[in-house]
Amino acid sequence: MEKIAINTKCSSSEVHVGVSWQSIRGLLPEKGVIIITDNNIKRIYGDKFPDFPVISVKPGEVSKKLEVVESLTEQLLDLGIDRTGFILGIGGGVVCDVAGFLASIYMRGIRCAYVSTSLLSQVDASTGGKNGVNIGSTKNLLGCIRQPEFVICDPEMLMTLPEEEYFSGMAELLKTAIIGSEKLFEVIEVNREVLIKRNHDLLSLVISMAVNFKASVVSEDEREDGLRRILNFGHTYGHAFELYKSLRHGYAVAAGMALAADFSFARGHINGVGRDRILNVLKTYKLLRRYDIPDNQIGQLILHDKKKTGDDIYFVFTTGIGKTLIEKIPVSEIVEFYVKNKSVM
Amino acid sequence: MEKIAINTKCSSSEVHVGVSWQSIRGLLPEKGVIIITDNNIKRIYGDKFPDFPVISVKPGEVSKKLEVVESLTEQLLDLGIDRTGFILGIGGGVVCDVAGFLASIYMRGIRCAYVSTSLLSQVDASTGGKNGVNIGSTKNLLGCIRQPEFVICDPEMLMTLPEEEYFSGMAELLKTAIIGSEKLFEVIEVNREVLIKRNHDLLSLVISMAVNFKASVVSEDEREDGLRRILNFGHTYGHAFELYKSLRHGYAVAAGMALAADFSFARGHINGVGRDRILNVLKTYKLLRRYDIPDNQIGQLILHDKKKTGDDIYFVFTTGIGKTLIEKIPVSEIVEFYVKNKSVM
Repeated sequence: MEKIAINTKCSSSEVHVGVSWQSIRGLLPEKGVIIITDNNIKRIYGDKFPDFPVISVKPGEVSKKLEVVESLTEQLLDLGIDRTGFILGIGGGVVCDVAGFLASIYMRGIRCAYVSTSLLSQVDASTGGKNGVNIGSTKNLLGCIRQPEFVICDPEMLMTLPEEEYFSGMAELLKTAIIGSEKLFEVIEVNREVLIKRNHDLLSLVISMAVNFKASVVSEDEREDGLRRILNFGHTYGHAFELYKSLRHGYAVAAGMALAADFSFARGHINGVGRDRILNVLKTYKLLRRYDIPDNQIGQLILHDKKKTGDDIYFVFTTGIGKTLIEKIPVSEIVEFYVKNKSVM
Repeated sequence: MEKIAINTKCSSSEVHVGVSWQSIRGLLPEKGVIIITDNNIKRIYGDKFPDFPVISVKPGEVSKKLEVVESLTEQLLDLGIDRTGFILGIGGGVVCDVAGFLASIYMRGIRCAYVSTSLLSQVDASTGGKNGVNIGSTKNLLGCIRQPEFVICDPEMLMTLPEEEYFSGMAELLKTAIIGSEKLFEVIEVNREVLIKRNHDLLSLVISMAVNFKASVVSEDEREDGLRRILNFGHTYGHAFELYKSLRHGYAVAAGMALAADFSFARGHINGVGRDRILNVLKTYKLLRRYDIPDNQIGQLILHDKKKTGDDIYFVFTTGIGKTLIEKIPVSEIVEFYVKNKSVM
């Protein structure tokens, strides 16, 4: 078991990796706790939840809506939750995003924590304090950056994940390796069989490595004014794929990373060996699928990515496994690269 | 002109009192600014607004809704506002609450500032960073605490306020005096004629005094875990009146302060002279009206006040002009005092 601290300018948080999620009881206040989860998680784990009121939402992006936040608000009020209340989100990225956003704004902010149940949220989403809901087709258009008090990442809970969901999480794990840790990349490269079998100890190790790296980034730049931008590696193209086709996030990011690696090679930032290692590991984990976006739509889809400023975008390149370079470049160059290279992927 | 600084743990803000609001141009970035205002303010001052896109909402509490925030969000997106954007709220409490909340959550937070156009918001609402919207009948149920970069308080803008709105603001000014400054109380006591005529220099003085006091409270306790609770003097009964009858906030608070002063006297916290000075000044400014709530409803209306924790409430008493005492007391005692004393007010 490892406890990883995140200390930002105004708050601190702790991610507990490799611990049983049922140890949560000892971390919660005695009263005023509300559990927010989704129907799938409730069906699988609900009978072992701590003894507090449970509000369950529909699984998936359909719940990342302002109407859901409003409905949860009314339910919290009916349950008598006041400013001393505590929201525990038990679920994947969607549940934690909605629960965290609600906790950030309910009565101008109440306490919260997560039990993170998907690989994607354990290695990425639940660390860093970003939360929010989608408005129309724009993801996370309304939200906050606010650290939960703690996050529990129990690899045991990953055993019940559907296969596509598990591999989707592997993509964000790979992203972390590519931008920050050649060692993590090697562990993932050489342990394919054991990781696909979801070995508990190896999962604990790679999740810890990913969270440690992300924690160091977020501690330095909570609001994504600089360093934190590297976490968007693969996301510029990835978000466009996600908008165009309803893909799981990890598959969209994987396709985006393949393009970003190739773009990095084309601009001379990474050598062919490095680029091929990235593409090969994506192939090995069956993440390399092709999604075609018509040439006349890619630009608009990329601009929908809200990290844009003006017509230039901070694009994250890799300069070798574990290393990045951010350049502010015109959207037109990103579009042009896609149009010229999508058929060779 | 006075610049009053608010420095909290994580942010800083500046309130400019007595400056012309048209000096705002020099404080804004060159691009990416959106002005949010209401139809009344736009009609009166719109032709002198700086040259940026303007979004105007309906005046009054009807605009303090989540649907309005959602609609504004879509308009900001259509106008191409990204994370580098800047929201300038020009209006009273409602406009600043909605604009501030939107700025707190749009793309997880963008810059914002206010031009505060009502006496109520100049002396109270726009200082301190509280923002939010109502859900159903519960005021400010969703919101944030986040300091705007700056607030402009120009007494010249108060000349166009409807009389009831102006006096409503006087109530919050009096509240500040009662809880924090006997000197301010005396200025208000002896200058009735000049203040009713809205004398520019005297308004600058009293607004500065009120903002200085509030800034000192907020700098010490931004999140209302202790000291900031004193700002709720008169608000426990006041919010009940406001919920029961659609009153202007200041009139509800004035009635609440009269009861709180009397309650303070009944419990031996303030002497008769002090109590009478408070009641007299409320009378002088025509703020002392009676609003009857049926005995069987007052408890529920008070509990709707979200500052409650359990069945006890932090009630703010006065122990003399400029001094307070907070006691956590059962709601039943607050109800009992109202039932026994409302007819003698």
